[in-house]
Formats: sequence, C-alpha cells, structure tokens
Amino acid sequence: MVNETQHTCSASSSSRSDGGSSSGSESSKDNSRCSTPVLDSDRHERLREKMRRRQDAGDKWFSLEFFPPRTANAAVNLISRFDRMGAGGPLFIDVTWHPAGDPGSDKETSSMIIANTAVNYCGLETILHMTCCHQTKDDITGHLQKAKRLGLKNIMALRGDPAGEEWEEEVEGFNYAVDLVKHIRNEFDDYFDICVAGYPKGHPEAESYEADLRHLKEKVSAGADFIITQLFFRSETFLKFMKDCQAIGITCPIIPGIFPIQGYHSLRQLVKLSKLEVPQEIKDVIEPIKDNDAAIRNYGVELAVSMCRELLDSGMVHGLHFYTLNREVATTEVLKRLGIWKEDPRRPLPWAVSAHPKRRVEDVRPIFWASRPKSYIYRTQEWDDFPNGRWGNSSSPAFGELKDYYLFYLKSKSPREELLKMWGEELTGEESVFEVFTCYITGEPNRNGYKVTCMPWNDDPLATETNLLKEQLEKVNRRGILTINSQPNINGKPSTDPIVGWGPSGGYVFQKAYLEFFTSSEIVTALLKVLKKYELRVNYHIVNVKGQNITNAPDLQPNAVTWGIFPGREIIQPTVVDPVSFLSWKDEAFALWIEQWAKLYEEESPSRMIIQYIHDNYYLVNLVDNDFPLENCLWQVVEDTFELLN
Amino acid sequence: MVNETQHTCSASSSSRSDGGSSSGSESSKDNSRCSTPVLDSDRHERLREKMRRRQDAGDKWFSLEFFPPRTANAAVNLISRFDRMGAGGPLFIDVTWHPAGDPGSDKETSSMIIANTAVNYCGLETILHMTCCHQTKDDITGHLQKAKRLGLKNIMALRGDPAGEEWEEEVEGFNYAVDLVKHIRNEFDDYFDICVAGYPKGHPEAESYEADLRHLKEKVSAGADFIITQLFFRSETFLKFMKDCQAIGITCPIIPGIFPIQGYHSLRQLVKLSKLEVPQEIKDVIEPIKDNDAAIRNYGVELAVSMCRELLDSGMVHGLHFYTLNREVATTEVLKRLGIWKEDPRRPLPWAVSAHPKRRVEDVRPIFWASRPKSYIYRTQEWDDFPNGRWGNSSSPAFGELKDYYLFYLKSKSPREELLKMWGEELTGEESVFEVFTCYITGEPNRNGYKVTCMPWNDDPLATETNLLKEQLEKVNRRGILTINSQPNINGKPSTDPIVGWGPSGGYVFQKAYLEFFTSSEIVTALLKVLKKYELRVNYHIVNVKGQNITNAPDLQPNAVTWGIFPGREIIQPTVVDPVSFLSWKDEAFALWIEQWAKLYEEESPSRMIIQYIHDNYYLVNLVDNDFPLENCLWQVVEDTFELLN
Repeated sequence: MVNETQHTCSASSSSRSDGGSSSGSESSKDNSRCSTPVLDSDRHERLREKMRRRQDAGDKWFSLEFFPPRTANAAVNLISRFDRMGAGGPLFIDVTWHPAGDPGSDKETSSMIIANTAVNYCGLETILHMTCCHQTKDDITGHLQKAKRLGLKNIMALRGDPAGEEWEEEVEGFNYAVDLVKHIRNEFDDYFDICVAGYPKGHPEAESYEADLRHLKEKVSAGADFIITQLFFRSETFLKFMKDCQAIGITCPIIPGIFPIQGYHSLRQLVKLSKLEVPQEIKDVIEPIKDNDAAIRNYGVELAVSMCRELLDSGMVHGLHFYTLNREVATTEVLKRLGIWKEDPRRPLPWAVSAHPKRRVEDVRPIFWASRPKSYIYRTQEWDDFPNGRWGNSSSPAFGELKDYYLFYLKSKSPREELLKMWGEELTGEESVFEVFTCYITGEPNRNGYKVTCMPWNDDPLATETNLLKEQLEKVNRRGILTINSQPNINGKPSTDPIVGWGPSGGYVFQKAYLEFFTSSEIVTALLKVLKKYELRVNYHIVNVKGQNITNAPDLQPNAVTWGIFPGREIIQPTVVDPVSFLSWKDEAFALWIEQWAKLYEEESPSRMIIQYIHDNYYLVNLVDNDFPLENCLWQVVEDTFELLN
Repeated sequence: MVNETQHTCSASSSSRSDGGSSSGSESSKDNSRCSTPVLDSDRHERLREKMRRRQDAGDKWFSLEFFPPRTANAAVNLISRFDRMGAGGPLFIDVTWHPAGDPGSDKETSSMIIANTAVNYCGLETILHMTCCHQTKDDITGHLQKAKRLGLKNIMALRGDPAGEEWEEEVEGFNYAVDLVKHIRNEFDDYFDICVAGYPKGHPEAESYEADLRHLKEKVSAGADFIITQLFFRSETFLKFMKDCQAIGITCPIIPGIFPIQGYHSLRQLVKLSKLEVPQEIKDVIEPIKDNDAAIRNYGVELAVSMCRELLDSGMVHGLHFYTLNREVATTEVLKRLGIWKEDPRRPLPWAVSAHPKRRVEDVRPIFWASRPKSYIYRTQEWDDFPNGRWGNSSSPAFGELKDYYLFYLKSKSPREELLKMWGEELTGEESVFEVFTCYITGEPNRNGYKVTCMPWNDDPLATETNLLKEQLEKVNRRGILTINSQPNINGKPSTDPIVGWGPSGGYVFQKAYLEFFTSSEIVTALLKVLKKYELRVNYHIVNVKGQNITNAPDLQPNAVTWGIFPGREIIQPTVVDPVSFLSWKDEAFALWIEQWAKLYEEESPSRMIIQYIHDNYYLVNLVDNDFPLENCLWQVVEDTFELLN
C-alpha cells in the first residue's frame, strides 16, 4: 500500500528559521499515543465495519446461530462448542432470545449470559437477539443496558411471537421490530450494531410479499445496519428477494440464512414454526429415508453446499448465516466443503482474546492462567483498563477473589464419575497422584484402563506445544515434580509456525523455557541448593499455600517469556511471569486440589486426606530459563535436584 | 538475592470459598503499574541513595568538579569534555558558582545553564554550587526555583567569598552556608540533595579548627546530606579530619577533594585563594622543574595516585572528588591508574539517557536523532511525559519547533574554516558533495588532503557500529546515496558485546537493518520500482523538503528496530522508526544542509547554489529490513536500483 500524502510545510530554507514547521507545538504529547499496536484490526472494528472490509476485500465469510441451552450441563457443552466452532473463524455468532426462558436473567442458561460468555470468554463477535412484543419499554431498556454493560455490541431486533392466537396491537407498546429498532437508536444512539430479519418469501403474517418488503425497508430506515434472512430452500428464492430489496432502495448487507437439513423431525418442526413449505423435490428424497439420520444429514449437507455455491457464485452474496440448531457436524462439513472454514486459524496472540470492547487493547497476560483463560478473564473482569504493550510492575494487581470461581464455566466439563475413573476411585498415597499426572502427560491409560484427558488445572488434553516436552515431562512427573504448565524455549520461529506461531505473517516468535509444578518440601530444599548454581540464568518463584514465598526475581519485576517481532510494528510481548500475580494464581492453583479433586472423595476418607496433605504441604514452583538461545537448562536443574537427593 | 516474604493468606481449603484471598479486591488496577522496567537503578535513585548503595556494595567511585567557561566556544568544548569524561563513569559532576559571572542567568556560559546541559543533554548527575552572601532571599529562592525547573536535583550550599576586605555580617541576611542550607530545607523541603564544604585544615577564617568542625556539624544538622572537602596535600590530613568529624557526631558521607597538581602557576594560584600551605617536600620537587609543565603534571599524577591509594586503603573512603580545573588528562590518568575509570562503560540503553527527573522513565526514542541526541532532548524538552515501554501510534508527536535550534550546543564543534577544509572551499557539482560523504565514511583525506571528521548530521566521526557497514556505505555514497544514519541487523548478540551491546548483562540484543539517506528524485523513482519486489520485507518512508511523503508503513505504526531481552525483565525496545516523528526529523535534516553547509559560502555563489539545489530537490529516504535473522537485503535493494538505472 502506498500512501501519498501532501504535508504543507514551511521548512524551506528561507522561512524555516522563522519557526514554521509541519510538526505541532503543543507542550505535551497527546495521550492517544498510548494506544495498542494494531495487531488485529478485528479487535478494533465494529461488526458492520468488519462486514464491509471483508466484502471490499472479496473475502467470503460465515456466521453461526445458536439457541440458549436448557441445563447448566448443556451450557458447559455449548461453550466448548463455541470454542471449537470459533476456531473455524466465523465473522460472528448469534444467540436467540426465548421470552419464556427468562432470557435477560443472570441464569447460566439465559440468552444474555450465554451471549456474554461467547463475547467475553470465547472472544467471539456476538449478536444477541431481542424480541419486543408484550414487553414494557423499561424491561427492554433494562435488557439493553445490561447487554451494553456486559460488553455486547450487536442486537438482532425482532418482534417475537405473539402469545395468543389472536394478536392485537398494543397502543404505545412495541408491536413490530421497527419499534425496537427505533427505541435502540433513540436510547443508545449509535452504540449497537442492529440486525433485522428478512423474509425471502414474505413474513407469513404480512398482507403481501410487497407489503413485507416495505416493512423491511422501514426497519432499515429506522436504523438497522444489516439483514439476516429466514431460511429458504432454493437459491433463486434468495436472489430474487435480494433484487427486490435493492429495487425498493434497501442498500445494506443482506445475509442469507442457511439451514442444512439435519434430520427429519427437526425439519418438520422448523417448517411448522416458520410456516414455510418444503419443495416437492426435497420431500421426494427425504420421505423414503426419514428414519436414516445419517442419510438425511448427508443429503442435507449436499443440498446446502450446492445452494451456497450458487449463492456465492452469483456475486451478490459475501457471507452465509448458518442455523446450526446447536449442532456441529453438518454445518462444519458444509463450511469445509465450501472452503470457508479456516483450517489453520492464525492466532493473533498466543492466548484467546476477549471481544469485550474495554479489553480490545489487552495484549499482555501472566502465563499462569495459560490453561485457564476463562478464569483469568473472570478474575479480571472488574479491571477498568488492561495492560497494553507492557505489564509494568506493581504491588497490587487486583485480581477478583475466588469466592465465585465455582461459576459454571470454570467447572470441569466432565462429570464426577468420569473424573473418578481418570484420577482414581481410591488413592493409596502420593505415588498414586504422581501416576495420574504421568498418565495425563503420556496419554497412556491409567491402571484401571482409563485415559486421563483432563486435570484440575487443565480441562483439555495436552497442548500440541507441550507435546514437544512430553518425554522429559513424563520423567519428572513420575518422580513427584507434578507439572501443571510449561513451554519450550523458542529462538525465532516464523510467526506462521503451525505449533508455536501467532501474530501477523512475516514475523518471528520467541519464548523462554518455562516450567511450573507442585512438589514436596523435600524436593524444594534440594532444588534451592541446585538453583544457586543457576542463579544468573534461572528465575524462580516458590510458594506454599500459606504464602511463604522464595524468589530471585529482581525488584519483583515481570519477566517476558513470550514475544514476537513483526514487520513494521513494535514488539509484542503477550505473556509474562509476574511475581505479584503469581501470588493470586497460587490461591487458585492450590484451591483446585481441594475443589476439583479432594471433594470427589468422602470426607475423612484416605483419598481425600492424601490430596489435603499435598495441598497443605507441597510448594508451587515456577522456573524460567532466561537464556532462550541455548538448550533449555530446566531439565538439567531437575536432574541435578534428583541427583542431590539420592 | 532471596526474598522470603510472608503473605497472610486465608486460601486454605476450609475458608477459601468464603472469599478471603491474599489478592486485593479493588475494582481496577493501580495506575502505578505503568512504571518503567528498572533497567538502571541509577535513573531512579537520588544522589545520596546512589552514594549509599555504592558504599554498601563496596564500590569505589569518583566525581569531577568543573567551573563555568568564559566564552561560548569554551562552553562547546566543555560540553564535549562532559561527554568524554562522563564515559568514565563519574557518580556526579559539579559546576561551581561565580557570583561575578551572572551564574543564574540564561547565558550559555552561566553556571546554571552549564549544569542544565550536563544533566539534561549529557545525562550526568550534577551538583550546582550556590553561594549566598550578599544576596537577597528572593534572588536565592529564584535561583533554586529555576534549578528545580531545569531538572537539577543537587545543590552545593556555600557562603561564597565576601566582596570587600572587611566583611560584616548582614542582619537577617545569608551570612553563612548554614543559612542557605536552612533556607533550602525550609523552602524546598526534601527536594534537593544538599552538599556542604568541609575544611580538613579548618576554614582559614574560622576561630579555630574545633570551631570550624562545630560549624560543619551545624550545616549537617541543618539538613546537608554529605560533605566534600577542600583540597589537601597529605592523606593523614583528611583521615584525621574524618575521625574528628566522626568524634563530634558527623555521620554523613565525607568525600575528600583531590587536586592533582597540573602546573606550577595553577598550583600557586589555588594555594593563594585557599590560603593553604604547600608542604615543603612538594615544594622541593616542584621548584626545580617549575618551567616543565609535563614533568610537573607527571609528578602531580604520581602524588595524587599515591595519596588516593592511601585514602582508599584506609577503608574509610569510598569516593574521591576531583578538582579538574576543566582539564582532562591528569585526572583521567589518575583515575585510570587507580582502576576506577570505567574502561568499558555499560550502556543502559543504546542512546545517552538524560538525567532530568521527568525523563527517567524514558526508554524509547525514534532512531532519526541517533547522531543528534542533544537536539532530540532539546526538541522534546517541553513534553510532560515520555514514552515508557512503547512509543505508541499518534498523529501528533509535538516536537519543539526549529526556530531555536541554533542554540550553541546544537552547533558544530568545528569553526567555519575547518568545516570549509573538510567539506570543500568550492563545490563544482553534486559529485563533489558525493565525495565529501564518501571521505567521511572511508576516513581517507579529501582531494585537498583533509580528513572529513564530521558532517552536518554527525558531529562525530563514524560510530564503531557503523564501521561494520563501511565497505557497502562507501560504495553507495560514491554513487549518490548520501547516507546519514544506518545500523546493521543483529540477531541476538550478548548484551555485553563491546560494539552493539547495551543493558544489563546476561541479555541479548537485536536490531533490524536500517539505512537513511538523501538521494535524487531520479534514484527515488528507480528505488520505488525495486521496492515493489521487497514489499513484504522492507518498510520505507520517502519524503522531500516539501513534505511529499511515500510510505508502505501499515497504519503509520512505529517499527521497533532495536530491542533487548534480559533475564527477569520485560522486553526493552529503545529505538523505533516512527512515521510521524520522521516528518519532524525531516524538517531538521533538510535544514542542516542550509544552516550548516550552504551558509558556509557566499550568497549566490555556485557552491551555495549546489547545496540549495540538493536541499530543494533531493528526497530523504529511510529503509528497514524487517527480516532481521537473514542477511541484510538493503544493499541488494540499492544494487538493484543502480542496475535498473543503467
């Protein structure tokens, strides 16, 4: 990109010394200089701008619709699905609004809280649906204020289904979606991006197709930014609708709603609700195979792929909106076959960013929460500003307290019975704990034949990156160095590296080797002796549950352990070992022994006492090898420690 | 260093979920988190703390006394001396106060302005002397306020010499140094560190040695932080004085004033002023060689070295204060022989820091002023805060205007005649300008036999680092790529590297290759074509005097081109290419053609017109090769450009 800018400038030889120059003369620098390095413009644009940029660039995109779950367990599963489907790179997701299900409440299953989780914890651009009929102005304003407070930035404004058979307009009430659009613009100005629904066949209750088009235009004129359509079965339906919209002067983006048929019953139910008619050629295929779910899904995928291709090939469609029905397989399959599922999502930073507007400058975090990013976001949600460029040193990073950490999305995805199978129905001593850690690392089944796929500190199987250290990790865990976090040293790998890369392409990423583990006081005593030999090279922090803290960190400064160098940018250093935050993490890390593990067993049972003993007596240790260009010395440190003990 | 800290912490298994944790619960982070990474504790401590730290560490140190110069030329020379002697690592320098010479004025030769230059432009911890007799309270307060405003932090409080023969105390006036000490503490609280004078033989006007000791104790009790003594000729004199001071309860540091005898006449004059007697054994040596300056200086050095050794060996002395008489050789020689001159000064950052308190967090600067750090400090002196950790992106870094840039310390050290010899008495075309640039690079004499040791953009000979690029620089300058700034790429050299190293030891430093030059529009046209091939790898900014600006920098973001990774610290990135600041630098860089070069010649002379032509028509170009681990491609870019032109 070449910018040719003309600067008026009086710095010619004759007038220069009279003082005119193109630079300003204010006496201090603009505060705006402290903004974030624009690593990822996605974090700075609003949805309608992203949509426009993608369209201008000729990028095809997709979005995903979900409905709120019924139970807390289903919510935990849905959030994992957000993480997995989020990896494919949707432009946004949206969460529907069910007036009967207390959608604006603080329940973990409410539309509001699910959308909040998607934005803040999964980092997804999210649209929250909202319906208006049968609701007071105050209720609606309250919902919108709450949405804004939670960091939600986009609303799908809908009428909602009338409660009774015979629906009557309420005087002064919200009778149509257009009323809600106007209300949002009146009360919240331009804060929200607003989406409205379009009906390619006309709304079933509209007087006519043409009348419905006019209603749609009213919604856009009232302030809607784009349109998502009801599902349809033939691409011609959508393309005709789009042309008709354009003909009456609707110029905003219109996104086709795609419904991959996933089963006979779900299709019938949807058709009933939406009052659409399934074309005969589809009925002809489906009826004979209606009891064969797999066959119907395959057909549904075929059908969706070919319809999407027609839409994209028309040149009129830039994005596709998918009605997922909260299922993964069919939609993912369609997206992969269309080639718009991002197979290798580029990570803007080594950790998952949050999409809350006030966190968009955040680009540094302590490494401790690497496997618990949602907990980190939760514990820092009250912060007013976020580290930008540097972590800085401080005596009091105010982490939220632990009292609420049992919040459902911080819980393990696995039920108690499964955890017992993985971590042992009955523990016989510290060694049986060592075994659990070792099985988690190796991926081998435990003595009862179960694989250990999660730990209290890691809800997912071992990261690909950690696999690089597998052999050494196995060795040390067997002997009571119970590792919970680690990274290898990296001396300048391309930022596009599939395992350790992040950030824009053309850059280089670096890491200092890191190892974090629980271990006994006996091992700590030997370790401290060994560390004297490594004083200048290895930084350590060693702390027990009571807060006894031993460190050689200079002036309690943070140590950058992950950083990247990119073309035309300042250095990004997204991960630090911060001595002060470590003490907050320590509380969480020790508490997980009890909350997630000990409490699986009966009170006073030997198994519970073993975990309690470890909790009370072990130390949490972290080690950084500062000499990143050399071979990682932390394994040698541990080896020396074991040697000293023998 | 091992810190064992007890943290009270209620995160035991029983009480944890009730909310008590050792982390705070404030709703936002402390602003103090944005402090600088403590790279160099010298920048954060006050003088008395530095003194204490050095003493506690058993480090021996030295300090240097200078008097203000009489002429502007002498001031320029003195400031170069500050830079050279500052490199040896003095703990501080001090500047004497001569009431007759308008010492508090804004003249470039005043004590106040010389001290200001030492602190702000040379980055030296500085003590400003101040005398009080025959001055009003308001005058004194005015001087102190001005000193504070300029960033001076230390005052040597003196009585000063009474004007007439018969001195009488003024009622309510400042009659003794102790009055000044009290006044400073009353009016400025603890802002200044205060030094007072001690007289190892007693003040010549004191009633007695004992009475003088009591006066000294009064000065310390009134708030003085340390004592520097009058010169003396025998170590016993000082050691006895020190014991006597301690005996009456003076516990602050007492620093011996060392006077290396440098010549017969200066010794006689000093002895007369200070009313000291030169011991017979010294007179016996000096009298016979009084016309042989070199011999006297050698003897003076011997004498000073042996006296200093005795002082240091006594274990009572930790620092030595040198009366330099504004000369370099003898004092430097003594310091080197004592082994306390820092032969290889460790650079805390790649550029010379300023000692102004408000600049102590500054750790990022644009690369453009690399050879003109004093100009950069001058043009940013009105800033209220300085980049700390990151430069950030901004549309208006408010650089001071150029109108005052002729300030004496921004001028060339060389007189006009010398500059003409170096840069040509008469220019015959652009090629003769190319030749000047080439001779500066190669160090070879020009066609008239003179070496080119400075350029308008570089007041010093080529930096050692630039020597690494000498061969390529010579080649391109010969052909009209007139380089004024460059650095090689560095992919992780130890921070202790004698050429490119900086920062604490145990770290690694990195650079992106940088090249900045003036060149004709013809070459720029070809260059732009070539740069298309390097679009993803090379960032460029190309601007002419009118401000026509061509760049491929993304979003006008700064590009970090020098950075360092250190044990236990965040990343330091002290040098950036900032597209916005470049436009301010451009004004200065083009103006130097006229102010420093064209104006050497008569108006309307062909030589002047040649420089004016270059000023009006050439472009200033900077190039960054982002791919620092690979071989620098900028030479290939230039090579390709020449090839395209042929």
